[in-house]
Amino acid sequence: MVINAPSPKSQHQQILKEKNQKLSSFQDRHIGPSADDIRQMLEVLGFTTLDDLIDQTVPQAIRLDRPLELPEAQSEYAALTKLKEIASENQLFRSFIGMGYYDCITPSVIGRNILENPGWYTAYTPYQPEIAQGRLEALLNFQTMITDLTGLEIANASLLDEATAAAEAMSMSYGVCKNQANTYFVSGECHPQTIDVVRTRAKPLGINIIVGNHQTFDFSQPIFGAILQYPTSDGTIYDYRAFVEKAHAEGALVTVAADPLSLTLLTPPGEFGADIAVGSTQRFGIPLGYGGPHAAYFATKEEYKRQVPGRIVGVSKDAHGQPALRLALQTREQHIRREKATSNICTAQVLLAVMASMYAVYHGPDGLKKIAENIHSLTVLLAEGLKRLSYSISSEYYFDTLRVELGTRPLEKILAECLARKINIRIFDATAVGISLDETTTEEDLIDLWQIFALGDDLPFSLNELTSPSASHLPPKRTTPYLTHPVFNRYHSETELLRYLHKLETKDLSLTTSMIPLGSCTMKLNATSEMIPVSWAEFGKIHPFAPLLQTRGYQMLFQMLEEWLAQITGFAGVSLQPNAGSQGEYAGLLVIHQYHESRFEGHRNICLIPQSAHGTNPASAVMCGMKVVTVACDVQGNVDLNDLKAKAQKHSTELAALMVTYPSTHGVFEEQIQEICAVVHANGGQVYMDGANMNAQVGLCRPGDFGADVCHLNLHKTFCIPHGGGGPGMGPIGVAQHLVSFLPGHSVIGSGEWGMGSGDSLGFQPQEGVGSGEDSSTYQLTTNNYQPPTSMGAVSAAPWGSASILVISWMYIAMLGASGLTQATKVAILNANYIARRLEPYYPVLYKGKNGLVAHECILDLRSLKKSASIEIDDVAKRLMDYGFHAPTVSWPVAGTIMVEPTESESKEELDRFCDAMIAIRAEIAEIELGKVDTQDNVLKNAPHTAESLIVGEWNHPYSREQAAYPAPWTRQSKFWPSVARIDNAYGDRNFVCSCPPMEAYSD
Amino acid sequence: MVINAPSPKSQHQQILKEKNQKLSSFQDRHIGPSADDIRQMLEVLGFTTLDDLIDQTVPQAIRLDRPLELPEAQSEYAALTKLKEIASENQLFRSFIGMGYYDCITPSVIGRNILENPGWYTAYTPYQPEIAQGRLEALLNFQTMITDLTGLEIANASLLDEATAAAEAMSMSYGVCKNQANTYFVSGECHPQTIDVVRTRAKPLGINIIVGNHQTFDFSQPIFGAILQYPTSDGTIYDYRAFVEKAHAEGALVTVAADPLSLTLLTPPGEFGADIAVGSTQRFGIPLGYGGPHAAYFATKEEYKRQVPGRIVGVSKDAHGQPALRLALQTREQHIRREKATSNICTAQVLLAVMASMYAVYHGPDGLKKIAENIHSLTVLLAEGLKRLSYSISSEYYFDTLRVELGTRPLEKILAECLARKINIRIFDATAVGISLDETTTEEDLIDLWQIFALGDDLPFSLNELTSPSASHLPPKRTTPYLTHPVFNRYHSETELLRYLHKLETKDLSLTTSMIPLGSCTMKLNATSEMIPVSWAEFGKIHPFAPLLQTRGYQMLFQMLEEWLAQITGFAGVSLQPNAGSQGEYAGLLVIHQYHESRFEGHRNICLIPQSAHGTNPASAVMCGMKVVTVACDVQGNVDLNDLKAKAQKHSTELAALMVTYPSTHGVFEEQIQEICAVVHANGGQVYMDGANMNAQVGLCRPGDFGADVCHLNLHKTFCIPHGGGGPGMGPIGVAQHLVSFLPGHSVIGSGEWGMGSGDSLGFQPQEGVGSGEDSSTYQLTTNNYQPPTSMGAVSAAPWGSASILVISWMYIAMLGASGLTQATKVAILNANYIARRLEPYYPVLYKGKNGLVAHECILDLRSLKKSASIEIDDVAKRLMDYGFHAPTVSWPVAGTIMVEPTESESKEELDRFCDAMIAIRAEIAEIELGKVDTQDNVLKNAPHTAESLIVGEWNHPYSREQAAYPAPWTRQSKFWPSVARIDNAYGDRNFVCSCPPMEAYSD
Repeated sequence: MVINAPSPKSQHQQILKEKNQKLSSFQDRHIGPSADDIRQMLEVLGFTTLDDLIDQTVPQAIRLDRPLELPEAQSEYAALTKLKEIASENQLFRSFIGMGYYDCITPSVIGRNILENPGWYTAYTPYQPEIAQGRLEALLNFQTMITDLTGLEIANASLLDEATAAAEAMSMSYGVCKNQANTYFVSGECHPQTIDVVRTRAKPLGINIIVGNHQTFDFSQPIFGAILQYPTSDGTIYDYRAFVEKAHAEGALVTVAADPLSLTLLTPPGEFGADIAVGSTQRFGIPLGYGGPHAAYFATKEEYKRQVPGRIVGVSKDAHGQPALRLALQTREQHIRREKATSNICTAQVLLAVMASMYAVYHGPDGLKKIAENIHSLTVLLAEGLKRLSYSISSEYYFDTLRVELGTRPLEKILAECLARKINIRIFDATAVGISLDETTTEEDLIDLWQIFALGDDLPFSLNELTSPSASHLPPKRTTPYLTHPVFNRYHSETELLRYLHKLETKDLSLTTSMIPLGSCTMKLNATSEMIPVSWAEFGKIHPFAPLLQTRGYQMLFQMLEEWLAQITGFAGVSLQPNAGSQGEYAGLLVIHQYHESRFEGHRNICLIPQSAHGTNPASAVMCGMKVVTVACDVQGNVDLNDLKAKAQKHSTELAALMVTYPSTHGVFEEQIQEICAVVHANGGQVYMDGANMNAQVGLCRPGDFGADVCHLNLHKTFCIPHGGGGPGMGPIGVAQHLVSFLPGHSVIGSGEWGMGSGDSLGFQPQEGVGSGEDSSTYQLTTNNYQPPTSMGAVSAAPWGSASILVISWMYIAMLGASGLTQATKVAILNANYIARRLEPYYPVLYKGKNGLVAHECILDLRSLKKSASIEIDDVAKRLMDYGFHAPTVSWPVAGTIMVEPTESESKEELDRFCDAMIAIRAEIAEIELGKVDTQDNVLKNAPHTAESLIVGEWNHPYSREQAAYPAPWTRQSKFWPSVARIDNAYGDRNFVCSCPPMEAYSD
Repeated sequence: MVINAPSPKSQHQQILKEKNQKLSSFQDRHIGPSADDIRQMLEVLGFTTLDDLIDQTVPQAIRLDRPLELPEAQSEYAALTKLKEIASENQLFRSFIGMGYYDCITPSVIGRNILENPGWYTAYTPYQPEIAQGRLEALLNFQTMITDLTGLEIANASLLDEATAAAEAMSMSYGVCKNQANTYFVSGECHPQTIDVVRTRAKPLGINIIVGNHQTFDFSQPIFGAILQYPTSDGTIYDYRAFVEKAHAEGALVTVAADPLSLTLLTPPGEFGADIAVGSTQRFGIPLGYGGPHAAYFATKEEYKRQVPGRIVGVSKDAHGQPALRLALQTREQHIRREKATSNICTAQVLLAVMASMYAVYHGPDGLKKIAENIHSLTVLLAEGLKRLSYSISSEYYFDTLRVELGTRPLEKILAECLARKINIRIFDATAVGISLDETTTEEDLIDLWQIFALGDDLPFSLNELTSPSASHLPPKRTTPYLTHPVFNRYHSETELLRYLHKLETKDLSLTTSMIPLGSCTMKLNATSEMIPVSWAEFGKIHPFAPLLQTRGYQMLFQMLEEWLAQITGFAGVSLQPNAGSQGEYAGLLVIHQYHESRFEGHRNICLIPQSAHGTNPASAVMCGMKVVTVACDVQGNVDLNDLKAKAQKHSTELAALMVTYPSTHGVFEEQIQEICAVVHANGGQVYMDGANMNAQVGLCRPGDFGADVCHLNLHKTFCIPHGGGGPGMGPIGVAQHLVSFLPGHSVIGSGEWGMGSGDSLGFQPQEGVGSGEDSSTYQLTTNNYQPPTSMGAVSAAPWGSASILVISWMYIAMLGASGLTQATKVAILNANYIARRLEPYYPVLYKGKNGLVAHECILDLRSLKKSASIEIDDVAKRLMDYGFHAPTVSWPVAGTIMVEPTESESKEELDRFCDAMIAIRAEIAEIELGKVDTQDNVLKNAPHTAESLIVGEWNHPYSREQAAYPAPWTRQSKFWPSVARIDNAYGDRNFVCSCPPMEAYSD
């Protein structure tokens, strides 16, 4: 189905648009330096034109010799208008599908002041906690909410989605269980997408999956763990105690996938013995978004704290003994453990976790309980009515979901009535359907639902007959309190919540304050016009398993974005399913594995990874059942070609893949990249390219052209999805033609080209003329299997991952067009080289390309300072805060260095300000070197300086207060104050606390 | 036409909605104190129930003995859903109407980060400049932009709309001209709404208006001033030099109403001798909004600086000699000059002026010029095409507007083609139409326009034939530079602009930080759900003179809101036209004047005003040609009934009105209000009630019930329109039945009940079946006169004032309903009494009602502190900043006092925090009284303390740095830092600068 073919009219429009592009373009808004700035910067670098610089930087052999084939750049206004047209192709049906996704109400104050607020969404992962206390506090609230609701001891700061959280639970269970079993029990009553993702994860690890009935499973086969759904996917609430006891008796861990809203009324998993609880907090105020992004949770017992995947926020103290938050137990992270890591999870869903936590802060325990009770009583009412209509309901105990047995009534008739009312329900099979209610459901909706099941007859009862207080259909209710901490009980008026949000926001340094020059993280402009469509109901209010014909707008968006990304990377196919960079790596390697298997070479399991690789690379390889063999780098930081050749040849019969980053993680365009790829191919391997540094390639060269077979793209780096304070991200993969058929699929609904128009097995036909003027739609069964037989399976809960934020990347590409994208890349390289040149006299630039140029980032070597002045890398990072900056990436990829990536969006003025700060800090260090200043009591060691620490009676430092606070002129015009002093990480890990401490801890 | 009659279906829905209201309501979100807090506060006051307190506060005689008749409260979600339905009744046509209103592109970064950002929109008027430097800087940019574009020396910080700005220009000209004439020349080529508003303003002042042709006017009749439009309403650009010279020769002042965008290309008014320039900055990125709000500008020569209406931001310096901004020349303001004031203007349009200024900052001089040039070349192209179609264009010189002579082609046919394309044009008469292009116009639009004029025939030319560079139709272009200041040339990338906006925002204390307890200003919650619809295109993208049948949604909104406000006030009719409180006062008094005239008592011109009245009251009376007679107050602060009686009787033959505020400006429910009204009525006068304190009445008593004849409502106080940092506001008026027919009208389009369905004189009929499924529409001529013969005329440029922000008040009332509104009033009274009770031991409460209770605000008497400790009221106001608070209203209505109005939205915790701060300050004062602390060098005199002033090497004050910065525990948890120290007002007035100073002034 060709969606995008221009009609004659739109061709005419296109001509007009091109003529009408005289005005300022988005390119001028996105790119920081003006034409004049660019001239000046080139002069510093000794070049006349930008193209000269690029010619000297990017190897000629791999240069793309033509413009990218992308639509002409559109103005912000035109692109928004166009996307609104596309959006209007989506049809908003009321969703009663359930399956872990529920419509809900985002409190307006939260939507506008978090989701739509650059102060929150442009922040980075809180690796520099002194200037991130706001979102760390919000995440601590999230963890507290989860531990309270699940009745478990610790929780992490969110995972990508419920299905991947379940897969992580399986992996963790596998790691910690001591009973030697390699079988995992999955309840058949789990959500189908969860089963799917768990299966995908299990296969390469050699884990055997049993999908069964927990009531009849007899444990005759040893298992290391099990996962149960609570309530089940079709709504039933079981008492799992007996199962848990049996599992524990043989040493297995039990995971419960639980709906957090139901836990306000039900006995929490921790109280009936669950070892792990996972689930989605989507219904805590996060729009459906056709699948995401949402924050999943992961809770477990404290004894497993070092095995928990993802990030945990913990309480510690600062240099003055004040309580202060930071990421705890960082030694667990893959960038340290590399191939010993059991999870490659990196990005969390911070922005969504913050929103969900604030939903709980806003409603409080009583409010959440009321919402749950209201949904439950409506569900009971719905069941009463359906019984009057002679339908039978399968479950005795349920919360919000009913499985309705149709008996002799034809499904087609029911569905036709649904269509007429723009209502979606779940279809189990030809004789049973599911209905899940949610926070938005009203009694009016119940009447509509009854009318559907009355098949056009008048209802034989009135609402009032049923509204007498009905008996609850819940098992004995939860008795333990939750959300008792003051934070969940004091911000219930909008004014109070708004001020709380504002107070937290002002503690955090985001892109609204200054540049965040993080190497390998591409913190560029997240333009407002890119963000605006995320809030549109046409994108937000759609269930991920809504029939495809209702989501034409999304399908158009996907198709365009896939084509554009394929064009940009030089690949034949793209999957938008992986919802984080780590997921993209994992999915990409699985594609390679499937490919080998299809050629009867499934034994190929050696993954070559250069020393300099991202920590997620080895972790991903291990998750795919591969063995990691490290390839050395030479002194220039390039892959050691001889070592590569040697190892590729040595392992040529088992070689599966090389994982390589380009430009390298050392910030250099390696000249021999084509040769590297050739060596791997020659030895039977495939080349996986890590796309983290794609921002240096767009429009200049394409991985697909110079030898890569697979590449993931961090849409949250190169393609402008904001970092959200640590997520959401998106990690689509592009693959060469020979790999297209192995891309991720999805069992619940068709994905990509296979899903569209592939019909449905019940032969249900489109209804003409239903609704008033809308496109007629047909139903597709939501449980059909649309995966192509060769697909590697699903890696995310939703078919297109975090679909709703794809609009951001669509807008970015649409507004820049081919020439704008290419210019952005060029300026990103210019900015990095300008910084390198300005700072080189003060800090050696560690690696450079053959012409002495870096790519889009540069590594500054600070290692000598330790000896000369006892200065550690952290001292410089923290001192930068006093100057109003967020530190660059520290000690990665080389310990003792910092990696600076300015991106194209930063202006020359901002680059100069940053360089001035770095140069001033070097002068401060020189004073130590000269012995003029104490090696311990100095502005660096004591950084960052809080206002409170400076406004004291007695000043006991050898430097002045002004030196501490106002080291540069701009700090006097506008000063960003860190809210705590330097944080003691070790103290917090020794005294591990990952939920809100009592308020007294914060008092003086 | 009854719009709101519920269908049987919607009645059913209503029943359902009522049943479904178990969940937390908006009331709980809007009202600060929880039920438990209320209990505790009542205990402090010695009451058991809230109703007991209210019974003792509000006089029994005037209590409303039934609930307000308003729809049931709806949840935020339901109200937004309902309003979206209403919004969808508006039809979005492309507008080519012009007449001073143009579609434009709000840069997304400005829309989201100013218009949709509570950090900007909840700020108050910058009367406390030390914590308002952000918006003061933005307003200084606005003034600079205006002086640059107009070529005049000074500009104010905005006025309400172009038409009222023109009226102000007339008044100012009248005041400063020395030639004794009382005739004002108005060019007939001004916008019709401008002529209308000027006429209304002229009449009560006895000014004679000549509407004529500036080319033929021979000055035989002496005039004191004249106003000309540039370009004219129908698009012509004249050279006005000769006219200006003649006018100046006889001592008259010339005002030029100029489109600021055109001034990027045209010789500015200041360069051809204009004394005053006025106009609208709407097209600088402000949505049309069906008429507003937008910021008008007013520029003139420096010699008239003390006569300029409204507010001027000026540059001064702070206590440390740093440059600092504040409102200049405050001695001109009506609250000082009262009946000597020539303008009652109080609220400006700060939020919109800030946006317009940022539009200029974002585009810069080159960008603005390019936008203007693009519009002009499209206009030339349009004209070329129309000429090919054998139409004639009236003007030789034009910018963006063409008057097209139809010749023999029938207007009806043209209009039918317009309708088919959803295009609005201006209709002059049966033989001529107008087309105005704007920033959003594309060449595609031109093709559509040509096709309209081709009357269905194929175009006899292609676009390409015309697109060769056309000759300009501009007169010799502007030669002088503009916007040369760096601020207009450095923030052109989105990143840079975002950071600039953020930097300014963080300098200002808004409701996002802490309470702003301003007496008489009702700074309550501006809920996000109230604000969201303001951004909807269905409300924003509609021209104020669009045919009524396209604006059904707006008409429904107006009708509901009028009915609700009538119900709340007890009046028979409401006009939504006055777009500020001051405008409401003025319109209300004009209604009274019209009424007297209709009874042949037009000579009644005495307006009684109590001593305690708002300063706008006497100014408004004077504007209406009335003489002010002041009525004394007794020692309790109540109107002295004997004095009132004496003066009413003395002037009974000329008594026009009493202006009275209720509860009084002293914060007390006067017991004798009914008697006061009776006295006035007995002497032939009408009672005008100032509705500033309506927040104490809603649901408890109604002005219409106890004797008022007219009342204005500050929707930006009681009904939740945010203050926007000093505007926009809205000041509708309610009137008793006998005054309804005198309400404001509008000559350009019908207003209220007269306008709806009154047909049109050309007999143009509705088109059936045009468009796809939309309501069919009919055209109404935009130049017909729909004013009822008895109307007082227009007071605002747009028929329904600032229509787009009426959605805020609609949402507020819809979400609270009768019981919520009433509860809000009760809690507002409770909160004020709680503060009064807590602070009374420290500061005497100046006035109370008969049971020792105050209304919704209280006056704290600080006058004795001057003698006891040399402490001025300002010292306390500035010291409050160190505690993180915005000062209450100072020295009004009684010098040396502060007036505190907490509103219902503040929680007990916040009230306690404020009281704690005030008590702590009293203790600081006591130290001075005891002689322990110096009378000059103390924490109060030196307040506010900036961080910079505390972080210095040597500390030369007798108190500690900590005492200065952290006087209360909460300041250590979250400190709001004033960005400058106390500002020297007098210095700035002596050295008057009201545009951006050179950057060097800011450097160290």
